[in-house]
Amino acid sequence: MSVATQTLKKFVNAPEDVVKESLAGLAAAHPDLVRVDFDNQVVLRKDAPVAGKVGLVSGGGSGHEPLHGGFVGRGMLDAACPGEIFTSPVPDQMLAATKAVDGGAGVLHIVKNYTGDVMNFQLAAELADDDGVAVESVLTNDDVAVEDSLWTAGRRGVGVTVIVEKLAGAKAEAGGSLEEVATVARRVNERGRSLGVALTSCVTPSAGAPTFEIGADEMEFGVGIHGEPGRRREKLKPASEIVAEMTEAILADLSPAAGATLLAFVNGLGGTPLIELYVVYNELAKQLAERGLTVARNLVGNYITSLEMAGVSITLVELDDELTTLWDAPVHTPALRWGA
Amino acid sequence: MSVATQTLKKFVNAPEDVVKESLAGLAAAHPDLVRVDFDNQVVLRKDAPVAGKVGLVSGGGSGHEPLHGGFVGRGMLDAACPGEIFTSPVPDQMLAATKAVDGGAGVLHIVKNYTGDVMNFQLAAELADDDGVAVESVLTNDDVAVEDSLWTAGRRGVGVTVIVEKLAGAKAEAGGSLEEVATVARRVNERGRSLGVALTSCVTPSAGAPTFEIGADEMEFGVGIHGEPGRRREKLKPASEIVAEMTEAILADLSPAAGATLLAFVNGLGGTPLIELYVVYNELAKQLAERGLTVARNLVGNYITSLEMAGVSITLVELDDELTTLWDAPVHTPALRWGA
Repeated sequence: MSVATQTLKKFVNAPEDVVKESLAGLAAAHPDLVRVDFDNQVVLRKDAPVAGKVGLVSGGGSGHEPLHGGFVGRGMLDAACPGEIFTSPVPDQMLAATKAVDGGAGVLHIVKNYTGDVMNFQLAAELADDDGVAVESVLTNDDVAVEDSLWTAGRRGVGVTVIVEKLAGAKAEAGGSLEEVATVARRVNERGRSLGVALTSCVTPSAGAPTFEIGADEMEFGVGIHGEPGRRREKLKPASEIVAEMTEAILADLSPAAGATLLAFVNGLGGTPLIELYVVYNELAKQLAERGLTVARNLVGNYITSLEMAGVSITLVELDDELTTLWDAPVHTPALRWGA
Repeated sequence: MSVATQTLKKFVNAPEDVVKESLAGLAAAHPDLVRVDFDNQVVLRKDAPVAGKVGLVSGGGSGHEPLHGGFVGRGMLDAACPGEIFTSPVPDQMLAATKAVDGGAGVLHIVKNYTGDVMNFQLAAELADDDGVAVESVLTNDDVAVEDSLWTAGRRGVGVTVIVEKLAGAKAEAGGSLEEVATVARRVNERGRSLGVALTSCVTPSAGAPTFEIGADEMEFGVGIHGEPGRRREKLKPASEIVAEMTEAILADLSPAAGATLLAFVNGLGGTPLIELYVVYNELAKQLAERGLTVARNLVGNYITSLEMAGVSITLVELDDELTTLWDAPVHTPALRWGA
């Protein structure tokens, strides 16, 4: 008799059941906000579809929690389609989500720029159109690290996706038309840029081993949220220097107006303690102030992760009055919640 | 010339500056909720003292974020005293916090049961009394793992502390007297039990190396939030078995009434991905239901951590009508926020 020794340092049962068991936990913990259609593997806003409101659907591979299922609820997404870990959901899932949230005002697809997601959401949009549901799609591609990447043509969609979901969700909640909601989403993506740095690799439950090797004195500058390579491997540095390098790269690409007002989002990639995220935020706030930029809104925490990767990403979005108002609007989701 | 190679996989500058730089980040990110008295190293509710309201002060070593500074704000703490990493704050800090939040109705100290914290809070209470501030102290000691421990006489105070701070904070906000607020806090501690499991060790910035060694196929059952030893070292198991073992240990000690209504708190110790925390919550909800226990309220996330430790703790609190109402009351802090 052979006895397998478990060496997977994770709270899981069978690795292939992680996604559905985690969704069951999400549904059990937040019945006031969401329900889960297990047949189609879709997380739905509890009261979807909302008559007359534009429906918002996003999705992508799992392993980035709380993205996207944790952002389903009033003021943000109407549905999320989780794929398996780091694997695109399928068109049937997306179609089911789209039809489930269509309240008669059309549906917006928010799609991170990865080849599988883009292809599958496009097919789902065509199928929904055949079924008489008006669909607009918005692509997020905010990662300034690299142009083409392991799983993308063009830039990867990362941190700005969270901000797009919040702001477009608020616009839909306020009664915006499909075109208006899509316009807000595109504007946020255009005005947002991100960059991530990893200190350690993630470990997928199925592989059970680090996705990439990295030396004890190294960090990956420009890492992707699946552990994809970034711009370069660098030696570890003090937080002040890492943040300076990240901020420089983001601002060089974003080119905000002089004296611009920003939303600054410091995001943990899953394994970084909150005490460090606030050290990073402190550096970021100081360095932006030195450049004459005002941080009017901020978000600090683990919102778009890469399993247990130790790392951080910074997203900067140039705000305007409408986007600021939309940010402040109430949101009631498992992972982001404020207002009445 | 010798060139030091940095191998600390953390976003920090000088290790000795982590706490104060992180507090500066907290203050910069949340000026609507908190302010920081850097001379005394105290996080204060922005509008403290609130006239006529009982003030709530907690504190302890840093490295457990968002505890306690992330819980300062309306409906929870009035002040938090962060010590250095895993090191008790000093009496002068606690005294400054106590005087700063005294709105004339007295001050409650919420103290986790660790020798240094207990001693220093006791001294601070005596000094505050000399200065004419009425102080009550409540000790949390909910960890069923071990009786005496590395840094405690008696049981360690862990997850229930978060729940005590929320519920006592709501009672104070509702106008409760010092005695009433202290009574709620003690009742929550008496009705709450916790247990933690670690898969990996934390790494303190000053040591730069794991606090304890643990094999690739092992977990520490009953770990403390500073990496203190638990009940025993065990082989890794599926989540369902780990949760069963944890639930059994907690319920054996809590002995809830038949058909009791519980608050179930699944807490990440810092390095565990959210997808796993929901797998754990799913198991916990199922296993409690099988025992005829009702989970009326829950909390899932990283709220009392041990730096980047991969691990999870479960806290169960037996609710009553008043505690349930207090849980639902609005809270506006950096880490816990709901209601108008």
